[in-house]
Amino acid sequence: MSTLTSDHLATLAQQGIELPSWAFGNSGTRFRVFPTAGTPRDPFEKIADAAEVNRHTALAPSVALHIPWDKVDDYAALRRHAEGLGVALGTINSNTFQDEDYKFGALTHHDERIRRKAIDHHLECIDIMDATGSRDLKIWLAEGSNYPGQNDMRARQDRLQDSLQQIYARLSGEQRLVLEYKFFEPSFYHTDVPDWGTSYAQVAALGDCALVCLDTGHHAPGTNIEFIVMQLLRLRKLGSFDFNSRFYADDDLIVGAADPFQLFRIILEVIRGGGLNNPDVAFMLDQCHNIEDKIPGQIRSVLNVQEMTARALLVDRDALDAAQNANDVLAANAVLMDAFYTDVRPQLAQWRESRGLPADPMAAYAASGYQQRIAADRVGGTQAGWGA
Amino acid sequence: MSTLTSDHLATLAQQGIELPSWAFGNSGTRFRVFPTAGTPRDPFEKIADAAEVNRHTALAPSVALHIPWDKVDDYAALRRHAEGLGVALGTINSNTFQDEDYKFGALTHHDERIRRKAIDHHLECIDIMDATGSRDLKIWLAEGSNYPGQNDMRARQDRLQDSLQQIYARLSGEQRLVLEYKFFEPSFYHTDVPDWGTSYAQVAALGDCALVCLDTGHHAPGTNIEFIVMQLLRLRKLGSFDFNSRFYADDDLIVGAADPFQLFRIILEVIRGGGLNNPDVAFMLDQCHNIEDKIPGQIRSVLNVQEMTARALLVDRDALDAAQNANDVLAANAVLMDAFYTDVRPQLAQWRESRGLPADPMAAYAASGYQQRIAADRVGGTQAGWGA
Amino acid sequence: MSTLTSDHLATLAQQGIELPSWAFGNSGTRFRVFPTAGTPRDPFEKIADAAEVNRHTALAPSVALHIPWDKVDDYAALRRHAEGLGVALGTINSNTFQDEDYKFGALTHHDERIRRKAIDHHLECIDIMDATGSRDLKIWLAEGSNYPGQNDMRARQDRLQDSLQQIYARLSGEQRLVLEYKFFEPSFYHTDVPDWGTSYAQVAALGDCALVCLDTGHHAPGTNIEFIVMQLLRLRKLGSFDFNSRFYADDDLIVGAADPFQLFRIILEVIRGGGLNNPDVAFMLDQCHNIEDKIPGQIRSVLNVQEMTARALLVDRDALDAAQNANDVLAANAVLMDAFYTDVRPQLAQWRESRGLPADPMAAYAASGYQQRIAADRVGGTQAGWGA
Amino acid sequence: MSTLTSDHLATLAQQGIELPSWAFGNSGTRFRVFPTAGTPRDPFEKIADAAEVNRHTALAPSVALHIPWDKVDDYAALRRHAEGLGVALGTINSNTFQDEDYKFGALTHHDERIRRKAIDHHLECIDIMDATGSRDLKIWLAEGSNYPGQNDMRARQDRLQDSLQQIYARLSGEQRLVLEYKFFEPSFYHTDVPDWGTSYAQVAALGDCALVCLDTGHHAPGTNIEFIVMQLLRLRKLGSFDFNSRFYADDDLIVGAADPFQLFRIILEVIRGGGLNNPDVAFMLDQCHNIEDKIPGQIRSVLNVQEMTARALLVDRDALDAAQNANDVLAANAVLMDAFYTDVRPQLAQWRESRGLPADPMAAYAASGYQQRIAADRVGGTQAGWGA
Repeated sequence: MSTLTSDHLATLAQQGIELPSWAFGNSGTRFRVFPTAGTPRDPFEKIADAAEVNRHTALAPSVALHIPWDKVDDYAALRRHAEGLGVALGTINSNTFQDEDYKFGALTHHDERIRRKAIDHHLECIDIMDATGSRDLKIWLAEGSNYPGQNDMRARQDRLQDSLQQIYARLSGEQRLVLEYKFFEPSFYHTDVPDWGTSYAQVAALGDCALVCLDTGHHAPGTNIEFIVMQLLRLRKLGSFDFNSRFYADDDLIVGAADPFQLFRIILEVIRGGGLNNPDVAFMLDQCHNIEDKIPGQIRSVLNVQEMTARALLVDRDALDAAQNANDVLAANAVLMDAFYTDVRPQLAQWRESRGLPADPMAAYAASGYQQRIAADRVGGTQAGWGA
Repeated sequence: MSTLTSDHLATLAQQGIELPSWAFGNSGTRFRVFPTAGTPRDPFEKIADAAEVNRHTALAPSVALHIPWDKVDDYAALRRHAEGLGVALGTINSNTFQDEDYKFGALTHHDERIRRKAIDHHLECIDIMDATGSRDLKIWLAEGSNYPGQNDMRARQDRLQDSLQQIYARLSGEQRLVLEYKFFEPSFYHTDVPDWGTSYAQVAALGDCALVCLDTGHHAPGTNIEFIVMQLLRLRKLGSFDFNSRFYADDDLIVGAADPFQLFRIILEVIRGGGLNNPDVAFMLDQCHNIEDKIPGQIRSVLNVQEMTARALLVDRDALDAAQNANDVLAANAVLMDAFYTDVRPQLAQWRESRGLPADPMAAYAASGYQQRIAADRVGGTQAGWGA
Repeated sequence: MSTLTSDHLATLAQQGIELPSWAFGNSGTRFRVFPTAGTPRDPFEKIADAAEVNRHTALAPSVALHIPWDKVDDYAALRRHAEGLGVALGTINSNTFQDEDYKFGALTHHDERIRRKAIDHHLECIDIMDATGSRDLKIWLAEGSNYPGQNDMRARQDRLQDSLQQIYARLSGEQRLVLEYKFFEPSFYHTDVPDWGTSYAQVAALGDCALVCLDTGHHAPGTNIEFIVMQLLRLRKLGSFDFNSRFYADDDLIVGAADPFQLFRIILEVIRGGGLNNPDVAFMLDQCHNIEDKIPGQIRSVLNVQEMTARALLVDRDALDAAQNANDVLAANAVLMDAFYTDVRPQLAQWRESRGLPADPMAAYAASGYQQRIAADRVGGTQAGWGA
Repeated sequence: MSTLTSDHLATLAQQGIELPSWAFGNSGTRFRVFPTAGTPRDPFEKIADAAEVNRHTALAPSVALHIPWDKVDDYAALRRHAEGLGVALGTINSNTFQDEDYKFGALTHHDERIRRKAIDHHLECIDIMDATGSRDLKIWLAEGSNYPGQNDMRARQDRLQDSLQQIYARLSGEQRLVLEYKFFEPSFYHTDVPDWGTSYAQVAALGDCALVCLDTGHHAPGTNIEFIVMQLLRLRKLGSFDFNSRFYADDDLIVGAADPFQLFRIILEVIRGGGLNNPDVAFMLDQCHNIEDKIPGQIRSVLNVQEMTARALLVDRDALDAAQNANDVLAANAVLMDAFYTDVRPQLAQWRESRGLPADPMAAYAASGYQQRIAADRVGGTQAGWGA
């Protein structure tokens, strides 16, 4: 089975991957942030760039915002701006790691004033969700400590639960809270939500609308990520993905760039567990284009997800089941590799054209003149980055 | 605060660490198992060796058995033998990794005949528990796969839950099921219970008498183990420890040998979470003395746990709280380091003597002639190892 | 560029990958070695199986031997046996990790008697090389220690150099010594040759005929292996590869099974550095087929290397250079990914047929009846494993 | 042996640890740099802070500078300022990671203009060394790539060698070049000097005055660092240490904070290899005090090195040799642990007082009022950080 069927293509046609507004701003390492010509100066320009990705791929129908980086006076205007460009406003990401008050914690802080402030920040995020029509509040908890003894990890865990309950109570309608876990960084000794187990235990105590966000770069070396995908889907607690890739730590490279076969296995488990094109499981990117161009970096990323989904759809389930049931290790593995090694790109290019999209979105973007235009136009102002 | 108080000593006097019978048999790597003179030939001799550890330390009041390695015709006789030597029979460990049928799984196997056999093995283990008076059935699930595609990880997870439910249903009275997780090995692609989150989710679905076993060597590189200790205690699901230490993988070295400060932090969280001398949290060793002498290896191990518990008890809680509340990172860390760097050994030696124990158990054992005696006596027969 | 040219095919036609005799014997983990029907009972049968791999692929023209596992009375007879089956005897692998004397070291041992014995074992290996016509003596130094303090690492390093000099001095003609490094296992604290730097420093001190062997499974998590390939080729010290793959430690899985893109990058650096089809750089497998069938496991492996070499040959060097020189990160990466994602399998199948080989060697082997024949014939005797 | 002898104390009296000027400036992660009251605004104030560390400990006789962060108009004035405060100017650290031109490389860049600029920067650093009287030029090569294919790793290696030769040629008298290696960051796919082997191969090709700098935080997970210390000392190529500690990546925490036993083992190998108080082996710190106070953070660090050196000096060499020669694993390990667990702090406190130093330098600094003074005085200006 080496050709995508019309069913496969219909499945692929439904796929949508949310883009992070911050991917269009400058980013870097602690050593240096290199600026790029044409970088957006405000949320409107970020959304314009995101829409450009969608225009060439039809794969990126929404944009996640980060508060306060994407704060605007008029969210209705921002929403109209987005919709006018053919994209929706998506997940709202909170930020409790850049205020001076949060140096030693936010939702986990022992100082009730600071903890209150952090909770209130999340309530404000929910207000913004109400205005933007966003469904998901994503909380990446960048809290922890650098030295053994610095904090009481147990008490922080309890305070975290209390804080989350207060935030959760404010959600309404279809709104959801998704809690992201991360192995380490910016803290170097302990992180308050370091693994899926902690995120799961915390959200399970909240209720059905609280779920786990899995960032593919947030695990210990050697972790079998597709296993976690399987488990969270099984436990009905996988709320969203932050896709990216890594060789070492949280490198935030283009999804599929570091270990394409891992991405294949992850998507395979998503399909196996009913998570593909399931509105309950949001696909998002969370990447840093430190040295490469940002818009084509995002185009490349959504294409990588699409192409890998196509490969995963090609897996011959019947042959796989048969080999698994026969304990035929080599045959079962061969079923996977056959699909993985199938070159779906020519067929996808044709299919894109049939839908009025460019066969090669990367080339189409390069030829569009958009990059040159923004480089020329976006003069003055302050380039967006992780502070705005 | 650099001296152990009488309260501390009273606490230390209660400490008991269960020894694994298999630590007295030969072990090694896939490359080679080196035999040692005096190695036990049967469970009776293993228990005799374990009792020797307890005789010199008063720290090892019980011995864990491994079925089928420690199968005997008459468990009542084995129990009397143990009790006559001053030790109890403890946890029963099942084994589903050495039978030809289990090559591709046991409690997770798609073949119902094999899965039934594996469940029945556990029921037999519970029968043995009834005979030995053991409280805990420990399940280390050595199941998994070596190649992507080899197995349906999701279906295995469901079958595992079903198998565990059948086993759990057979427990009676005070009996408990503890489920151990392990990052990898003997499987190299996926392991069915690879992390604490999976073990937690599996036992939470069973009931109050199902708990997690934390083996200190079963984590990904860089994992903050004391965080997991804290979390499992908080979730009331930490059933037992398998202590050992590691530099790389599951090295099964003497506890405290690789990273003594990590052991200190782990015990500190045990104390913080109410797990010390709490009958619900069993302290056990799981080590391999591949190249060092086994009995002194076990003596060294229980002493390491005792000494580190003493250091952890010395932590000045009030000073720590004060520093934590003041966000004084250096001061908080210093409270821990002060305790860690305090040399508790002279005081512990004195205290041991005051209790009729040798000041230096290692030297006392060496002087006892026991090693020479067993080396001379245990001639003929087959030395115990991981097959018996 | 998505089609293999005749130049590419001519290059592929030259490719040869040496098989390890021990891959056909039983192997496993410290927990269990599962036997398989048809496993060879002696070196002659191992070579017959290796020849079967070559018969279906024309990719495996030689077989590495392991001494003492493959000791025979008459090496000339073994050589004739191999040549009669169309394969040559290749690298001789020494073994200093299974003799009781080597429990604490061999070529590094402080006891001169034991060190002498280990050196003499290598001299005997060279005698065998003289008889078999082998060029390379491969030394995997399984020596080290489990506990800090156990050994004087520095003195061992000096003794190792002395031992190697004595062995090196015995080489003649085209013979070479290749020194393998390994991150850990079977030792758990220190290994005497743990990294490429140590192997390089040791062989550089010997002379031009001493080189490094790179086993792709012998590195720390996250290591950029293709960088080491590049560096060793640059330093003219890459003597040979032991191909396999890994998710965690030295898993010894089928090459290309865990991270195919990594294998692609490794072969790309081999080509870049002039190491492909260069007689100075031997391609070998070192794998353990613990649960899968051994002969098809080896067929799959050599095919993986061949297919990945084909993909690497497809890299458009000119486009790559241009993108690199333009600092066009995305374009440069795309050149690699284009080649990697090209499905070379149909063309390779055709090409195989054009050379009188089966289009699908896996299927051809399955259809050949060989497996059934050896399962039926090889009854009685002792199956080969890591002890013979 | 649990008491420091007068020989030990004489050895300790010679110990000097160089402080990095940048440790006194603000630092953080890519997510946030938190400022602190009293942070220096220029190199003169940094040196004043460093001198304060030395005043309380007599352990920090020199300060490393970082160019361009510590550029001044008059280095003679800076030198007099330092000497007036009782400290010397030490190693000059170059910086080729913050200029826009160096986005894709510096000493390795394919663009000859940029490579020339980077070489010239190093020549300028040597000019500064001439003015400051510094002996060592330290090169941390923050160069690499983020995506496979982005660069030609081999050509970069050759260009690096050429660049280093040009820099090396400019050294005079006692001056040395030390080349630091780092596993990853700021690059995420490949780093041009990622391991000790590469640094060694590069400096060995330069000459006797080119050496390796070992930063204790720059290794893959699980790396046995003391082995590398041993090997570099054996190869006469260990030029300097950058001390710090880590749990995950290059965390740059206080030396000895994460794994004190590892620090003990490292210093033990330094002593074993003749590197203690050997002018050829410079002890330096390279740390980031992101959340803790900077001056006491440095005081704590040099004390940690001093205390651990004291423990390492206590190792009973004769007993260790005897145990090693007897293959008595437990006894040999015990010799190390005995020294490690000895509480040297009381004796060191006494000894400090006998030398006119505060028994407790941390307390003495806190009581000195210096921190309050600089917090009050250093108002206005721009706090120093990694840009100045």
